[in-house]
Amino acid sequence: MGVIETIVLHEIAGTACMTLLGCGVVANVLLKKTGGHNGGPLLIFFGWGLAVYCGVWIAFDTGAHLNPAITLALWLGPATEYADGIPITLNNTLAYFTGEFVGAWLGAVLCYLCYKKQYDDTEDATTILATFSTIPTIRSRFWNCVTEAIGTFVLVFVIIMFGHTPNGLGPLAVALLVVAIGASLGGPTGYAINPARDMGPRLAHAMLPIRSKGSNDWGYAWVPFVGPIIGSSLAALAATVY
Amino acid sequence: MGVIETIVLHEIAGTACMTLLGCGVVANVLLKKTGGHNGGPLLIFFGWGLAVYCGVWIAFDTGAHLNPAITLALWLGPATEYADGIPITLNNTLAYFTGEFVGAWLGAVLCYLCYKKQYDDTEDATTILATFSTIPTIRSRFWNCVTEAIGTFVLVFVIIMFGHTPNGLGPLAVALLVVAIGASLGGPTGYAINPARDMGPRLAHAMLPIRSKGSNDWGYAWVPFVGPIIGSSLAALAATVY
Amino acid sequence: MGVIETIVLHEIAGTACMTLLGCGVVANVLLKKTGGHNGGPLLIFFGWGLAVYCGVWIAFDTGAHLNPAITLALWLGPATEYADGIPITLNNTLAYFTGEFVGAWLGAVLCYLCYKKQYDDTEDATTILATFSTIPTIRSRFWNCVTEAIGTFVLVFVIIMFGHTPNGLGPLAVALLVVAIGASLGGPTGYAINPARDMGPRLAHAMLPIRSKGSNDWGYAWVPFVGPIIGSSLAALAATVY
Amino acid sequence: MGVIETIVLHEIAGTACMTLLGCGVVANVLLKKTGGHNGGPLLIFFGWGLAVYCGVWIAFDTGAHLNPAITLALWLGPATEYADGIPITLNNTLAYFTGEFVGAWLGAVLCYLCYKKQYDDTEDATTILATFSTIPTIRSRFWNCVTEAIGTFVLVFVIIMFGHTPNGLGPLAVALLVVAIGASLGGPTGYAINPARDMGPRLAHAMLPIRSKGSNDWGYAWVPFVGPIIGSSLAALAATVY
Repeated sequence: MGVIETIVLHEIAGTACMTLLGCGVVANVLLKKTGGHNGGPLLIFFGWGLAVYCGVWIAFDTGAHLNPAITLALWLGPATEYADGIPITLNNTLAYFTGEFVGAWLGAVLCYLCYKKQYDDTEDATTILATFSTIPTIRSRFWNCVTEAIGTFVLVFVIIMFGHTPNGLGPLAVALLVVAIGASLGGPTGYAINPARDMGPRLAHAMLPIRSKGSNDWGYAWVPFVGPIIGSSLAALAATVY
Repeated sequence: MGVIETIVLHEIAGTACMTLLGCGVVANVLLKKTGGHNGGPLLIFFGWGLAVYCGVWIAFDTGAHLNPAITLALWLGPATEYADGIPITLNNTLAYFTGEFVGAWLGAVLCYLCYKKQYDDTEDATTILATFSTIPTIRSRFWNCVTEAIGTFVLVFVIIMFGHTPNGLGPLAVALLVVAIGASLGGPTGYAINPARDMGPRLAHAMLPIRSKGSNDWGYAWVPFVGPIIGSSLAALAATVY
Repeated sequence: MGVIETIVLHEIAGTACMTLLGCGVVANVLLKKTGGHNGGPLLIFFGWGLAVYCGVWIAFDTGAHLNPAITLALWLGPATEYADGIPITLNNTLAYFTGEFVGAWLGAVLCYLCYKKQYDDTEDATTILATFSTIPTIRSRFWNCVTEAIGTFVLVFVIIMFGHTPNGLGPLAVALLVVAIGASLGGPTGYAINPARDMGPRLAHAMLPIRSKGSNDWGYAWVPFVGPIIGSSLAALAATVY
Repeated sequence: MGVIETIVLHEIAGTACMTLLGCGVVANVLLKKTGGHNGGPLLIFFGWGLAVYCGVWIAFDTGAHLNPAITLALWLGPATEYADGIPITLNNTLAYFTGEFVGAWLGAVLCYLCYKKQYDDTEDATTILATFSTIPTIRSRFWNCVTEAIGTFVLVFVIIMFGHTPNGLGPLAVALLVVAIGASLGGPTGYAINPARDMGPRLAHAMLPIRSKGSNDWGYAWVPFVGPIIGSSLAALAATVY
């Protein structure tokens, strides 16, 4: 396999696994007639953290970006490679973006299959959308962007710091970081902190024949796109001078 | 001890420990008059993950399969050994299967002894069965199989990926993976993702003199058998071409 | 410092820290007017696991037994030393036992000081005792002993297995094991799995001037003493032939 | 960058990240209309532990004190350096203190921005203050000081012990310690165990234009200052003779 194919394949697989498990834990908590029904926010925060954990194992060979905000920060920041042996080129960048968005879409489709009967049984359209994409608890495009930017800044900046310290945590390091961001900064917007994580499942929601689905809420879709891009760019900049 | 005896002994001990603790956490949450009563789904997901953690320590010398779906995937997939010094042969395969099923049965018996007075005090037969085997929240053999196959695919595929990445997590790596699968994909079927984990305790339920027990639900028993086999085979195949 | 003094000092400090934090998390959940009030069983299970975690760091130089059941198992089992440079002798054994019981008593006293105002405010004598010692949910001396023996067997046997596997978990390894045992086997008896952990705080409860305290429940006190001794001895024996 | 600038910059960044996430998880649980509303005490304890985790990654190069009580203990105790290559001098000590207090203030300001709309929506002044600073559940300056001193003693003493044991936990080691202290000793006073963590956000609360804010509770502010100093000094002393 060439580099491009390796990137696309691994990022699709890793991001699909992450989104399958991430959307899955929300489905487990929110949908009707599930074992995890009303399992509470801590379950969601741990579930999403461990979703990233699993995705990172799968996409380890390509650096496990799983997130266009990470790819962007490495592109803009002081890194010299996307992963061992993968140089920072325009083609590789596009391969990452492709893998991330396709994978995020695919994971949401798999999650739908996994919870098919529960989706059939759930009538509330907002609940259904919430298992796919993020929804702010109070709508305010400016402040929602601020929250997403701050959360993504923490994600990207701490990930860049990982390289400075020897440890044996492997993919657990980033999983705990994602639990932290969810627990602490996820309250207002549901912490997309990743344009693909929001957009891929939103597209899946639009395309899948879900019985009681409602609006795709495209009017909000740019917030979890722009906020993370801002946060990620600032983190890359900050890391350059840190 | 010969190789066969080593495999059987270690897989019995490890799987028994896993099933004792795994059924135990469900008993702690579901049975009457326990310290963990109504402890919630997150307790069950962590409890099962840590049950696997303990089982892996015990069966480390034989690779800690603890699950026929793992043995099957190693048999079908690119691995060359079941564990250090244990070649992939028909006899060894049967030794693993034997240890896994006997251990899973034994663990459920030990769990019954541990919670004897609570089992005596609990009258609801479905609650009692739920502490032994998995029960789907919405019965649909096809979709329950799909859910079990997807969950087992994630389990097996990520475990195969563990070998690619240096880390110091030891048995914690797979424990967190099991927490992830429970939290995210366990909602519809209770995530057997392991034919022995469901069948061994179900047999124990059938044999033990539990005061208020009801049906063994044999009609569902093939789902957590076939689903994991499908998922595991697909994961072994996918790993071959990944 | 001589070996005896080192053992006594480290085991007092480690066990005191463990019992301070372990009784502390129960106090946080059960007493009135605390930040953790009604925090649920998972909080207690994690709290006790992390209490062991902290105690192990402190008593690392003497092997961090913190529990007479561990000392007993090493005495009876295949180990050749209690810790690096500490041979298995009668005097050393008594030093460990002394440190463990004194430390457990001291930790409970410190916990009382930490929650002094909350103890003053809590009127229910059973709640107060529950923050010191274990209380079974259903009293049955035989079955309570069985539960304690099984729990201690798992604790001791898995700890003996830790030596077989390279990992970077350090004191986290045993902490997770204790979380597992609490979550899975702690339901019927509150998982003493350690004679000192129950007896030391029970003595503290008897001696401290707690406003609304009631019975010390000495009639039950032998169960968390005998059960762990049985479980620990069986685990040491099993490890010898494993 | 000179040593002084490095210390100030890293301790500001690390402490700001810690306080942003630490105040953030409390805001997520306590404020109105958040995803983590009523998420429970375990969420707060894990959230604060992981807040420290993230801060430690960021300030690793300067030893990640993040807490004047740590700096003080290293000053008084047997350590010979504040971090690799950073000698213990008066100027460096003041640089640490500066970074810690400024960072704690900055993190609280960022948290306010992140939860701006939720702060606007919350009317209860005590709830708002609780997302910034610690508030005792029962006011008693003496006993609140005792609780803070005991908690800080455990924090500092265990951190000093970290150096004795090889492990691969990296920043997770201290995160789990902080979870432990919160879960076990955080009940009476909200576990400041860090003068900067309480004072910085309290100043931010005083300065920020929060819609429904009330008193800054300066009358209590010396407790989370003096208690940690006492606990930290005793821990440094104890470590010297341990």
